[in-house]
Amino acid sequence: MRVPYALLRERLIRFLEEDIGFGDVTTELIIPDGVEVTAQIVAKEPMVAAGVLEVTVLFEIVGVKVIRSADDGSEVSPGEVVIEVRGPARAILTVERTALNILMRMSGIATATRRLVNKIREAGLGTRIAATRKTAPGLRYFDKRAVITGGGDPHRSSLDEAILIKDNHIAILGDVEKAVKKARSAASFTKKVEVEVRTPEEAVEAAKLGADIIMLDNMAPSEVESAMKLLRAEGLRDKVLIEVSGGITEENILEYARLKPDVISLGFLTHSARAVDLSLEIKTVEADAS
Amino acid sequence: MRVPYALLRERLIRFLEEDIGFGDVTTELIIPDGVEVTAQIVAKEPMVAAGVLEVTVLFEIVGVKVIRSADDGSEVSPGEVVIEVRGPARAILTVERTALNILMRMSGIATATRRLVNKIREAGLGTRIAATRKTAPGLRYFDKRAVITGGGDPHRSSLDEAILIKDNHIAILGDVEKAVKKARSAASFTKKVEVEVRTPEEAVEAAKLGADIIMLDNMAPSEVESAMKLLRAEGLRDKVLIEVSGGITEENILEYARLKPDVISLGFLTHSARAVDLSLEIKTVEADAS
Amino acid sequence: MRVPYALLRERLIRFLEEDIGFGDVTTELIIPDGVEVTAQIVAKEPMVAAGVLEVTVLFEIVGVKVIRSADDGSEVSPGEVVIEVRGPARAILTVERTALNILMRMSGIATATRRLVNKIREAGLGTRIAATRKTAPGLRYFDKRAVITGGGDPHRSSLDEAILIKDNHIAILGDVEKAVKKARSAASFTKKVEVEVRTPEEAVEAAKLGADIIMLDNMAPSEVESAMKLLRAEGLRDKVLIEVSGGITEENILEYARLKPDVISLGFLTHSARAVDLSLEIKTVEADAS
Amino acid sequence: MRVPYALLRERLIRFLEEDIGFGDVTTELIIPDGVEVTAQIVAKEPMVAAGVLEVTVLFEIVGVKVIRSADDGSEVSPGEVVIEVRGPARAILTVERTALNILMRMSGIATATRRLVNKIREAGLGTRIAATRKTAPGLRYFDKRAVITGGGDPHRSSLDEAILIKDNHIAILGDVEKAVKKARSAASFTKKVEVEVRTPEEAVEAAKLGADIIMLDNMAPSEVESAMKLLRAEGLRDKVLIEVSGGITEENILEYARLKPDVISLGFLTHSARAVDLSLEIKTVEADAS
Amino acid sequence: MRVPYALLRERLIRFLEEDIGFGDVTTELIIPDGVEVTAQIVAKEPMVAAGVLEVTVLFEIVGVKVIRSADDGSEVSPGEVVIEVRGPARAILTVERTALNILMRMSGIATATRRLVNKIREAGLGTRIAATRKTAPGLRYFDKRAVITGGGDPHRSSLDEAILIKDNHIAILGDVEKAVKKARSAASFTKKVEVEVRTPEEAVEAAKLGADIIMLDNMAPSEVESAMKLLRAEGLRDKVLIEVSGGITEENILEYARLKPDVISLGFLTHSARAVDLSLEIKTVEADAS
Amino acid sequence: MRVPYALLRERLIRFLEEDIGFGDVTTELIIPDGVEVTAQIVAKEPMVAAGVLEVTVLFEIVGVKVIRSADDGSEVSPGEVVIEVRGPARAILTVERTALNILMRMSGIATATRRLVNKIREAGLGTRIAATRKTAPGLRYFDKRAVITGGGDPHRSSLDEAILIKDNHIAILGDVEKAVKKARSAASFTKKVEVEVRTPEEAVEAAKLGADIIMLDNMAPSEVESAMKLLRAEGLRDKVLIEVSGGITEENILEYARLKPDVISLGFLTHSARAVDLSLEIKTVEADAS
Repeated sequence: MRVPYALLRERLIRFLEEDIGFGDVTTELIIPDGVEVTAQIVAKEPMVAAGVLEVTVLFEIVGVKVIRSADDGSEVSPGEVVIEVRGPARAILTVERTALNILMRMSGIATATRRLVNKIREAGLGTRIAATRKTAPGLRYFDKRAVITGGGDPHRSSLDEAILIKDNHIAILGDVEKAVKKARSAASFTKKVEVEVRTPEEAVEAAKLGADIIMLDNMAPSEVESAMKLLRAEGLRDKVLIEVSGGITEENILEYARLKPDVISLGFLTHSARAVDLSLEIKTVEADAS
Repeated sequence: MRVPYALLRERLIRFLEEDIGFGDVTTELIIPDGVEVTAQIVAKEPMVAAGVLEVTVLFEIVGVKVIRSADDGSEVSPGEVVIEVRGPARAILTVERTALNILMRMSGIATATRRLVNKIREAGLGTRIAATRKTAPGLRYFDKRAVITGGGDPHRSSLDEAILIKDNHIAILGDVEKAVKKARSAASFTKKVEVEVRTPEEAVEAAKLGADIIMLDNMAPSEVESAMKLLRAEGLRDKVLIEVSGGITEENILEYARLKPDVISLGFLTHSARAVDLSLEIKTVEADAS
Repeated sequence: MRVPYALLRERLIRFLEEDIGFGDVTTELIIPDGVEVTAQIVAKEPMVAAGVLEVTVLFEIVGVKVIRSADDGSEVSPGEVVIEVRGPARAILTVERTALNILMRMSGIATATRRLVNKIREAGLGTRIAATRKTAPGLRYFDKRAVITGGGDPHRSSLDEAILIKDNHIAILGDVEKAVKKARSAASFTKKVEVEVRTPEEAVEAAKLGADIIMLDNMAPSEVESAMKLLRAEGLRDKVLIEVSGGITEENILEYARLKPDVISLGFLTHSARAVDLSLEIKTVEADAS
Repeated sequence: MRVPYALLRERLIRFLEEDIGFGDVTTELIIPDGVEVTAQIVAKEPMVAAGVLEVTVLFEIVGVKVIRSADDGSEVSPGEVVIEVRGPARAILTVERTALNILMRMSGIATATRRLVNKIREAGLGTRIAATRKTAPGLRYFDKRAVITGGGDPHRSSLDEAILIKDNHIAILGDVEKAVKKARSAASFTKKVEVEVRTPEEAVEAAKLGADIIMLDNMAPSEVESAMKLLRAEGLRDKVLIEVSGGITEENILEYARLKPDVISLGFLTHSARAVDLSLEIKTVEADAS
Repeated sequence: MRVPYALLRERLIRFLEEDIGFGDVTTELIIPDGVEVTAQIVAKEPMVAAGVLEVTVLFEIVGVKVIRSADDGSEVSPGEVVIEVRGPARAILTVERTALNILMRMSGIATATRRLVNKIREAGLGTRIAATRKTAPGLRYFDKRAVITGGGDPHRSSLDEAILIKDNHIAILGDVEKAVKKARSAASFTKKVEVEVRTPEEAVEAAKLGADIIMLDNMAPSEVESAMKLLRAEGLRDKVLIEVSGGITEENILEYARLKPDVISLGFLTHSARAVDLSLEIKTVEADAS
Repeated sequence: MRVPYALLRERLIRFLEEDIGFGDVTTELIIPDGVEVTAQIVAKEPMVAAGVLEVTVLFEIVGVKVIRSADDGSEVSPGEVVIEVRGPARAILTVERTALNILMRMSGIATATRRLVNKIREAGLGTRIAATRKTAPGLRYFDKRAVITGGGDPHRSSLDEAILIKDNHIAILGDVEKAVKKARSAASFTKKVEVEVRTPEEAVEAAKLGADIIMLDNMAPSEVESAMKLLRAEGLRDKVLIEVSGGITEENILEYARLKPDVISLGFLTHSARAVDLSLEIKTVEADAS
């Protein structure tokens, strides 16, 4: 999930504009034009790097060259350099905050995602970790990319990407069957149909109606277990993908994963991710010969 | 800090567009046109409401009427209604996620801010809690407003609002004195000059040079104490505002506040705020008579 | 597939701006302010109306009221009124061309789509008619909506909506198997995987690899027939959706439809649709009393 | 009629964004980074190339180099290369559809225009072929450029470019004389005044009133002939330009052209142009050494 | 020359956004919500009102009602009310500066234009006063509208509206004849061809070549006189429009006008217009009962 | 006060687009592609150059190279070259007007500012010359930069940059004391508080209440003198900055400056600056060998 450089550039310019307003008056006043520096963005804690591509483009926008950088998705230890740049002192100081804000958020999301993915892999399980649409407004693209970088599945990027019949749809329509039938007959053949269910019985009903994915929403592990059993008993388990969602935490995730759903989705990856700690340090200063 | 309705409307339309793409295909397929519902956004945990104004405008954008709502800045208990709306079922379902994403983030930031403000007030202290520019890219306006709603000070909204000479400026320029003098003589008379210092001695130097605000950056409480003493000894304490920043947490904040700086600023209020839990519930469903 | 009114309004304002430039100088010079008229947009040939919703919003943008209109998707005979409006003469004359351009194009696409859908239904067949991404640049949303209005399936709206492995992907990768396996393991679980194949054997291979949809591209009816037979022989026909594409015309479409693919997709519906003939006629003129 | 590169670039980025959404997920998943290819866009039928400049810029936007290309306006035979490019496989696949959509539409319009221009030239006549404002919404610039490329006259690009008093203006005002007089006295001296007339008598009236151009609208060839005769009889023929419009087809155009109007304008050139058939073919594949 | 309300609204929102940034912090802090006021924008000197329509829309954008206002183009005496408004105190204070900036500039341009138009009319002459493209960047539409409001001719609004062969075109091409011939044969038949000449002889040459308009550029009155005589002598005077431009001031304009050119164009009307003096005064204050 | 190149570029492209519309049809028709020229923008009167940076970027946007140029802020004599460029003739002719419009306005503002700054310096005084928010709509950034280039202080760039309690705020609130107290307690600690006063007594009151800056508005020199004396008598002069504003002209400015306020601000610098006279001259013409 990646837009071309020219599009990414435009979006990053908007972020820069937001932070700069009429100008970085401090830097203009006290840093002479023509001073060149090298600087490093350094990890202050263990993290999975994300946003390196984005910040590289951001630096290029203001004429700063990225000399070396960690790969997006790589694990970085405290004290390690995530990005090293060289260019006009003024430009580096002006983009510093925007660059760090992007990296801190994206790496924070990727780090949280990776931790859960690893937990599941280390338990010998194959369940996917997925994001939700609970992203920061305006940051859907960046938040989802960070989840992918951490090893997660982005899930729907926007409402047009798949049919997902949620509890409130059913609350209004009053009927799972009607909803699924309508969706199956009228939706584009290119889209999957997912249904959110609240009971094991509804899960079976949705599977019988031909849903491609069933979301077991806000169920205790025991309920998920019942649903899985019922589906197997009816010979439907392999016909659908099972997504478990709601109330899942880093603490209880293995209880769910051991029941072997296909996917576990978690809103907090994007709506409450803790930013990782990074800082930009000036390494060398020299006047530009030009 | 509030832009006119017409400007806010435009920004919220962008958030909506991001989530909708080519259309909310699920809702269009299964919810008939003409169904009217009432729905409530309900708190799932104690919180300070923020973003109510924004979400009210968002609902109005799609023709949904807000019937009642908590005031921005008010404290809301679990189970209480934050916003109750009435309007076309399709419109409510289509904006649901965007509305919740705004409210969850802004209320999360306001709630964290209020908790710290209260902690300081309850200790009988007057220090202000301030935000930083460590906001989510593109959300500066919304993040800062949430801090204000929580009772905090927004600090600079963008680089053009005040002079703030940071460690990296000094690292490049090599000299606090030169930096402050340049800033004082060349900056617009409408702007304050703030200087970030690393030692008590630099604090005194900056104050003597006429800085309006001194940021004691990444100092232990004992260092802050020394700086305050030195400033008082030199008769400079009342000539400057003291901002303490870096390494301050909910746990150690009172240790700093007891030293009576004017301001304590904290990045995590905006870069790592935990979203509060809210959900939208359909209360009544009826077909539109029209 | 429908964006909220506020979003649609913005896009239509862009179309209007394109046509107006600095102003409709003719109308301003010769039509006095305050003249009110009623006008009708009348069909000059049989057509399926599409774009009525869009043009209604367009008229509202300039303060013109739509009094009555045909439903989008309804069949309209020559001489029938598609939209009747009442409002300031200046406003109606200024939007006339933009309104007609939208209606003529969208109704043209819907009319062509409906004709094919009817042909298939009248032959007692169930194959869906689908669009492609061969739309006019900038008009994806409008072209796809017109296809839906005509009774067709929009197919992917953009590259992010589904995995579609095309001939050029395979030409570069050199291998259907590798492509499908990669896509199946790495794509989001929310997306279907479609594969474009050139031979009946490749169709079987793709189905075995777990593709959700198989596109039989540029095949003669006899080749499509072989592919269908082979798939049935392998017990794979019900596991995949079959889309036929390439070289299909209004003349030969039944030859393909009789082979009972799930979908027939046609680029010309959107890239070469003939606009239908409509004109705006002034019915009554009166000076505004206000 | 040509905007600078930087402006064209921006508009093409919007077309690309429309097609890509959150990313070309198929290509990202299955085509490795670093693969370089050469590809050719090849004509599948005889055509006049148009949009080559635009597509060249489009390829440059994503870092793909155009190696050779047909000139805009040149005639291309089936099997001939219109554009040959070299660059990252991913980039070429991602822009393929947008590039083809632009080329197919613009070349379609240019080809239809050229055919009519040639028809008239081959009959030894000098009448100009002109477009109208019946262009696809949002594509005025591109559609008009395609007409020019085909050898036609773009006519007004927007409502501000010239005064054109149409039938509906007169229907409302009730009087050709009043309209032309008002326009002549109040319009900027930089603009021509054109009047649409329905009878030979009105043509004479408009010419006497000082119209610069007279549009004979929806007249049969015999009526056009009468109008021309009347104008000549009154010594007015050389004082005005005569544009014939409405109901003209490829079949009957010579009947009109033989009457020697200055211009024949045709809406179908842009509102119903058949796209020409082009395809992008991968010629060589190699891994990038870098 | 007037764009629809919806387009004007968008442009005015941009002006407002420029002045407000993150918010009108002063007003928010000290003026309570709910206070309603009436206010008047009052002329401080004699002026021709222009921008009244624009400022009316601006006030409506923020929910302020215009109660009465002078007509655009009317003459206003010192002390007279140009616009009286009623609405929320906050909104009025927040738009005050933007409203005044628009009115002061547009009325300044209209007032200067009217003064020259009157001077010419009072001398019993009919020459038109025209603007040039020497407008403030981004304000072409507003500056030209102000000229029209003052009674002037807007001339070309942008480079696409007419052919104007300037001295630099000829300097590069080296030849008036070649330039005019090329333009006449290749330009759209909808556009006039104007030629800028430096000598009476060139004026005659251009007229013979079929130019529609001849600009006598930077000529002394005696040279203009010679050119007019020569044209008359050749029987060409009535075949072309004569525009005089360059070096004309309020002082010498009648010397030129008496030579009876069709148009005199002046850059200073828009590039150096003195803003007129206006101020916004609060008339009544009351708390809102709601 | 300077935005990064990428942001400036975007804004200049908007100015260019405004002037070009669908294309510079004259230049395209008569100047052959491939002609290269050198051209000079030459001063026609003494001026302070401003906008050179902006126009350099503008030329780069269309592929024209700036060979040499005067520094922004330098004094240029009549006949001197401000900018010399080399590049495609078509590009230079197409941007000519936009480039000149920017330079003429910005240099006009800088020249007027410098004249006042010099007048004060030559009288041996230190008062700063400041701009106001009375800028042309949409040109805040460019107008303020021109003032800075001329040696002036930009004052607030937008309403969010500082607290400025104006006469209308006080008129509504009814009380200076209440306004200043509210502002001082609630405004961000990063912002100065300025108060506009109408009498010497109010000046003292505002200073006592802790205002950072006091604006003496529309006072005669004698009143300013009284205010200064009263402030000194109360020992408050050094605690505040004094800004004098309203009714100050080039003629009377020294009367004010001799009273030693800190700042004199003048609206006419930006709302009524006379554009300086500049012209673009073609120096050499050659066909491009490429």
